[in-house]
Amino acid sequence: MTLPFSQRFLALAKERSPLCVGIDPSAEALKGWGLPDDAAGLRAFCQCLVETCAPLVASVKPQSAFFERHGPAGLEVLRQTVEAATAHGALVIVDAKRGDIGSTAVAYGETFLGPRSPFRGDAMTLSAYLGLGSLAPIFEIARREGAGVFVVIRSSNPEGSELQRARLPDGRSVAECLADEITESNAAASSDELGCIGAVLGATQGAEADELAERLPHSLLLVPGIGAQGATIADVRRDFARHYGRVVPSISRGIARAGPAAADLKRAVERYIAEIRSTA
Amino acid sequence: MTLPFSQRFLALAKERSPLCVGIDPSAEALKGWGLPDDAAGLRAFCQCLVETCAPLVASVKPQSAFFERHGPAGLEVLRQTVEAATAHGALVIVDAKRGDIGSTAVAYGETFLGPRSPFRGDAMTLSAYLGLGSLAPIFEIARREGAGVFVVIRSSNPEGSELQRARLPDGRSVAECLADEITESNAAASSDELGCIGAVLGATQGAEADELAERLPHSLLLVPGIGAQGATIADVRRDFARHYGRVVPSISRGIARAGPAAADLKRAVERYIAEIRSTA
Repeated sequence: MTLPFSQRFLALAKERSPLCVGIDPSAEALKGWGLPDDAAGLRAFCQCLVETCAPLVASVKPQSAFFERHGPAGLEVLRQTVEAATAHGALVIVDAKRGDIGSTAVAYGETFLGPRSPFRGDAMTLSAYLGLGSLAPIFEIARREGAGVFVVIRSSNPEGSELQRARLPDGRSVAECLADEITESNAAASSDELGCIGAVLGATQGAEADELAERLPHSLLLVPGIGAQGATIADVRRDFARHYGRVVPSISRGIARAGPAAADLKRAVERYIAEIRSTA
Repeated sequence: MTLPFSQRFLALAKERSPLCVGIDPSAEALKGWGLPDDAAGLRAFCQCLVETCAPLVASVKPQSAFFERHGPAGLEVLRQTVEAATAHGALVIVDAKRGDIGSTAVAYGETFLGPRSPFRGDAMTLSAYLGLGSLAPIFEIARREGAGVFVVIRSSNPEGSELQRARLPDGRSVAECLADEITESNAAASSDELGCIGAVLGATQGAEADELAERLPHSLLLVPGIGAQGATIADVRRDFARHYGRVVPSISRGIARAGPAAADLKRAVERYIAEIRSTA
């Protein structure tokens, strides 16, 4: 029986570090490492990043788009990357931002979550434009498989604010409403402190981050956008304040840019791990 | 030089029919046809549906999730399905509902749009929780490749209403704001009557459909949810009224359920084509 994702994450975060290493093999990233922009270059990039970083951290987060971009062969590299990271004891959060209704939602859950799925992720990210309720079939699969999901609530890009801050008739913002619905669903499904539904909260939201985290007491909080997008670990520590213990800080380019030499990559990861530890 | 998607669609809609045949090879659909729930069953389902239906209509719409569910081998079937439909002269709208920011958005466009992409779609569906602006890199790729995109504005599932009807400070709903932003982007990019950015509007929205269509004068309107989800072609004709000429009516289960015999499938498609023609 697989333990719930949140329990596995907390144990590893304590043993290693809560740091999540983002695996973003964009065309630019491959070029930066002197690799060809094809499936072979993709494989080399991911192998190196996973071999060096996965043993040091609680989780890695491959961005699905950069694998899909290379077609079926790229998706085979995604499968191998998840497998390799798992072999190094890291949890894998597939950053796919999927969202759909009914049997399509079921299919996305069955694609990415758990050891019986083809990509065998421990967790995936979701997008909720069709409403949190539309994602219920994926939450069900996550619970059954001991997997996790992270629903994007508040993103770090400025273009997201208008929609995410739009108001419901009761005065709550879209982001607040989704947060409340996540909390209800987590509380209804289990009495565990943390449920299977986490949230993605951008690292550049200031006080809003704390307010949203407050509405999400049963959720892990995946925080991307640290490093390359401007926020520092210290910013995240300050913004999330007493919720910092539930934060999964994710860094991608800030680490990959130190490569491709394994020793440099390792040093970059260790520097972030030390920074997270010192501000905890 | 590839003509813009909307022009190619309108020509084919006139010559054949605007009908879009949805390809939804869910576990249930494969079972219904007596096929195994694996990549071979998936291939057989799609081959049969495409061979029979693609020559009759302007477009087909494979749902990506049902291919992803079978891992890299399933995505190879998606690639083959697009190729086969293209060979039969139908346009292919990949229903992927992708959405992300920056280089990730670029990667999604490069994955699905145009003959240089691995999946070679003519169009794809997008999700805008991160704001319409976050999708700009995908619009740029669509324009460059003569491809189309359809952004989900208003979905047919009841769980989507709360978010899509939330209000901005200026009083517009989220759906209305996205519609206006699409119209601005289409108008700014070209003086053509129709731009590359279409919208997905659920078939069960009644008068709201007409109001949103009114805000989207330069957009094709992809309307799923006909048949299995309760709405009829006549409902769509009534709701979209004078905008009906820009509607891409999509039917999935209503057609697949008639299979797997090719003659029965063909009869189902022809019945829908006649129904669309008679209400035009």
